[in-house]
Amino acid sequence: MKLYDCQIAPNPRRVRIFLAEKGVEIERVELNIAEGDNLKPDFLAINPRGLLPTLVLDDGTVLDECVAISRWVEETWPNPPLMGTNARDKAFIESRNRHMEIDGFMSVAEIFRNSHPSFRDRGLPGLSAVPAIPQLVDRGRAGIARFFERLNSDLGQHPFVAGDQFSIADITALSVVDFAGWVKEKVPQHHVNTHRWYEAVSKRPSAAA
Amino acid sequence: MKLYDCQIAPNPRRVRIFLAEKGVEIERVELNIAEGDNLKPDFLAINPRGLLPTLVLDDGTVLDECVAISRWVEETWPNPPLMGTNARDKAFIESRNRHMEIDGFMSVAEIFRNSHPSFRDRGLPGLSAVPAIPQLVDRGRAGIARFFERLNSDLGQHPFVAGDQFSIADITALSVVDFAGWVKEKVPQHHVNTHRWYEAVSKRPSAAA
Repeated sequence: MKLYDCQIAPNPRRVRIFLAEKGVEIERVELNIAEGDNLKPDFLAINPRGLLPTLVLDDGTVLDECVAISRWVEETWPNPPLMGTNARDKAFIESRNRHMEIDGFMSVAEIFRNSHPSFRDRGLPGLSAVPAIPQLVDRGRAGIARFFERLNSDLGQHPFVAGDQFSIADITALSVVDFAGWVKEKVPQHHVNTHRWYEAVSKRPSAAA
Repeated sequence: MKLYDCQIAPNPRRVRIFLAEKGVEIERVELNIAEGDNLKPDFLAINPRGLLPTLVLDDGTVLDECVAISRWVEETWPNPPLMGTNARDKAFIESRNRHMEIDGFMSVAEIFRNSHPSFRDRGLPGLSAVPAIPQLVDRGRAGIARFFERLNSDLGQHPFVAGDQFSIADITALSVVDFAGWVKEKVPQHHVNTHRWYEAVSKRPSAAA
């Protein structure tokens, strides 16, 4: 089993935090996305989408997408549970995690990929020849502002993103907040609920993974 | 329990097909998205993201996002399984389903939302005041062409999108192909694997849901 990883990138970090919360170690292969290792023939032969992280299981199954990789980890090492243990919690955590991805992560990725000079022909992950679209930077900045408002409001009702327990939705949200810092988008100072939550989840040992 | 639904929209159809495959009926409330019912205060009080489908459980839990709703259904009525029954299959189906969503559905949505006159200030789902960005139409058309190539290639190796069994990934892929027809993007004639698969899944009674 091998986890194709990239130390500096936000998505691989989500899986590293997930593994750290489980106390599980998997052999890692570090790729350098700044040098385009993930778009070179050797890696495309493993994952034609060219995305990190990618987990190759012992039976040869290739898994990409953070949540699919996390699902395999959760099913293989159920404790501590990070994706719920009954129908309601599994579904609610999945719903909340998708809010973090779609409303949060994608907004930041829109800003980053469409403004950073190195990505001017890589407007979508895992592909070259997709031109950056400058208007997406504005759309992403408006999106992350809306996301931060809603996150602070939700965290006023529960200690964690999907309720009373730490879950994969907190891992995604943490990665959104830290990734947002790359494009100079910060949680507004008066969002006290988010600051309280951020301090707590950042202090967990897994956050350093 | 209530499922907020919209007969004409592609995402609600995904959940209706999922329920039909399970043989499960849930009370439905039809909203008219063409008249913006999903963005009116009554519905925003239920789901502030303004998205359909939305499922409200008997305990008051609000679930949106097709896959989260499908997860609840799968966990509540496990047969026939549509999301896998062991760690490897659950994760692989989730990975393949996300490919259908990210590479397929999102490409079509980019074309549709950024070209249809009724959506000129609704470039993202569930929100007003997000201006359409015409360059996304070209990006979406390039994306769906790449998606179709890869889908045909994958379906040359397996009868269904995630292997030997019909799964949620086939439901998502079917919805992508039919949604693509709205923006005049058709599976190329020489993609014989996709045509064989499309004919088979379209003939299932659930496809009419």
